[in-house]
Amino acid sequence: MNAVRDVCVIGLGLIGGSVLRAADAAGRTVWGATKSTSDAASAVGDGYDVTTDVAAALRRAAAADAVVVLAVPLPAVPAVLHDVAEHAPHCLLTDVTSVKVPVRDAVRDVTPDATYVGGHPMAGRSVSGWPAAEAGLFEDAAWVVAVEPGTDLGAWREVAMLALDVGARVVPLGPGEHDESVARISHLPHLLAAVLASVGDTGGPVASALMAGSFADGTRVAGSPPGLVRAMTEGNRAALLPVLDEALGALGAARGSLASTGGLAATIEAGHDATRRIARRRATEGTTVSVTLSAPQAREALLGVGARGGRITAFDGDVAVAVVP
Amino acid sequence: MNAVRDVCVIGLGLIGGSVLRAADAAGRTVWGATKSTSDAASAVGDGYDVTTDVAAALRRAAAADAVVVLAVPLPAVPAVLHDVAEHAPHCLLTDVTSVKVPVRDAVRDVTPDATYVGGHPMAGRSVSGWPAAEAGLFEDAAWVVAVEPGTDLGAWREVAMLALDVGARVVPLGPGEHDESVARISHLPHLLAAVLASVGDTGGPVASALMAGSFADGTRVAGSPPGLVRAMTEGNRAALLPVLDEALGALGAARGSLASTGGLAATIEAGHDATRRIARRRATEGTTVSVTLSAPQAREALLGVGARGGRITAFDGDVAVAVVP
Repeated sequence: MNAVRDVCVIGLGLIGGSVLRAADAAGRTVWGATKSTSDAASAVGDGYDVTTDVAAALRRAAAADAVVVLAVPLPAVPAVLHDVAEHAPHCLLTDVTSVKVPVRDAVRDVTPDATYVGGHPMAGRSVSGWPAAEAGLFEDAAWVVAVEPGTDLGAWREVAMLALDVGARVVPLGPGEHDESVARISHLPHLLAAVLASVGDTGGPVASALMAGSFADGTRVAGSPPGLVRAMTEGNRAALLPVLDEALGALGAARGSLASTGGLAATIEAGHDATRRIARRRATEGTTVSVTLSAPQAREALLGVGARGGRITAFDGDVAVAVVP
Repeated sequence: MNAVRDVCVIGLGLIGGSVLRAADAAGRTVWGATKSTSDAASAVGDGYDVTTDVAAALRRAAAADAVVVLAVPLPAVPAVLHDVAEHAPHCLLTDVTSVKVPVRDAVRDVTPDATYVGGHPMAGRSVSGWPAAEAGLFEDAAWVVAVEPGTDLGAWREVAMLALDVGARVVPLGPGEHDESVARISHLPHLLAAVLASVGDTGGPVASALMAGSFADGTRVAGSPPGLVRAMTEGNRAALLPVLDEALGALGAARGSLASTGGLAATIEAGHDATRRIARRRATEGTTVSVTLSAPQAREALLGVGARGGRITAFDGDVAVAVVP
């Protein structure tokens, strides 16, 4: 186990580029590859060891036993996995993709000999590409590192260490639990923002002239690159459908109540109470919990930390130190 | 016509309190009344001429021929209108309520001898009460001043001057057009925020731990005081129902498309295109247009300015100077 394992990032948009910058700033040896010639040129111009030759970057990762970070949009993942299977088939592999079950399944299919631990930093922006990348993007962000029944906890610790090195806090979750949660707190917000933007735009120049804070906030992420939003929402179809149904049900109930009784108390008070519960959970200082990775039931203990909304903030040898609300 | 007419504000929450502070800062003689003893005590403590005796404040307004600004939540409007009818029946009356047709109808019913011109500054906050009020709240905000077939344009100019004095830009609109527009750009955002907050909260501690920018932005206004949100949304029932149906239709179409083809391109690209159109409209420098209030068809000309998304920025005598995109 090498605590300062080298880092090879494939895909250098906002997230991948920020991983490359932040891992470099943390003292790791880093290199990367992107099919975007403009992003590659910008990254080289900024002094980074970046190529458009994905195969070469992966061969170097295999030789150095580096951790390979897949940072391409979901639709591009299978193609890059084929490259991994060909050029670095036994590497330690992680990703920063917005869904975890589909990537896990693709890895099993395409490059079964890699040691894979899925990851997802919760640090979006409405800007994209290498020029938007910054070393501080992950500071205090939640970074999910997936735990499954077969997870090698030595490899898991390596991936978690990378997340901690770039300033994030590690949330251990099962892939399915991750996908359901991000449907609620990321993919649904993007769809509601798109719908709100369209309904506002239908109001024409008058509506546009009156827009203030509530509309600007509610539509901010509708300005995100549509390709990236499609990739993450369509890629999470199975988990997103029931969450969409919850939202449709709640909005339909509001409509029905407004039409029949004229009242919206249930909808508005439920939303207000929800924000207070959420704020309380997030403000809780929490207690410190330790999980020894070599102990029996360590995977279950890690998942217990995640299930309670906890975050790992450090490692002391093979002991994960977590804060749990 | 008195360009520096005194200002009497009834209701001293965020909006009413800010009108009092801003009109005072603009050099007007101001006084106010609120039934809230704590807001009244705070306002007096801050050096303002404020009472809990609404009748006394209105009698003074009648004597001084002041403009009376109704700044109470919609459910309290009829009771205050009865006070107006009793103590200042012939006053120049405006309001800052979030809907215009229901207030216009209530004024016609309760205090038909007042000269009424409806108003609505687009400057909400998720905080409320006198302590949240500030003189700068309306700086560059859109302030709708309603134009109807019977509107007295001298009175209209007085109300518009007050809005300009406190830093706002005046948008002339019919009451029905106002109510439809705010359903799109204010009331729907509040309902979507409430629904999103509830769906996120249902995800429990895990979802709360993962929340980032898109969720925080999409739910910000769900923290607003529920009573105020109910007042504005329930009070705009007739205009809000068809807008809610538009949103339900768009979200249902997204659901159907995701379930059947797996695609969300139509929803996401429409939302993205909408944000670009809205941003273009709002960024347009615009051309200057003048409306002479004493000319024939002046009301129609003012409504034409509003319909094109224009704003009045100044008066030169009885000529309104507008900027139209």
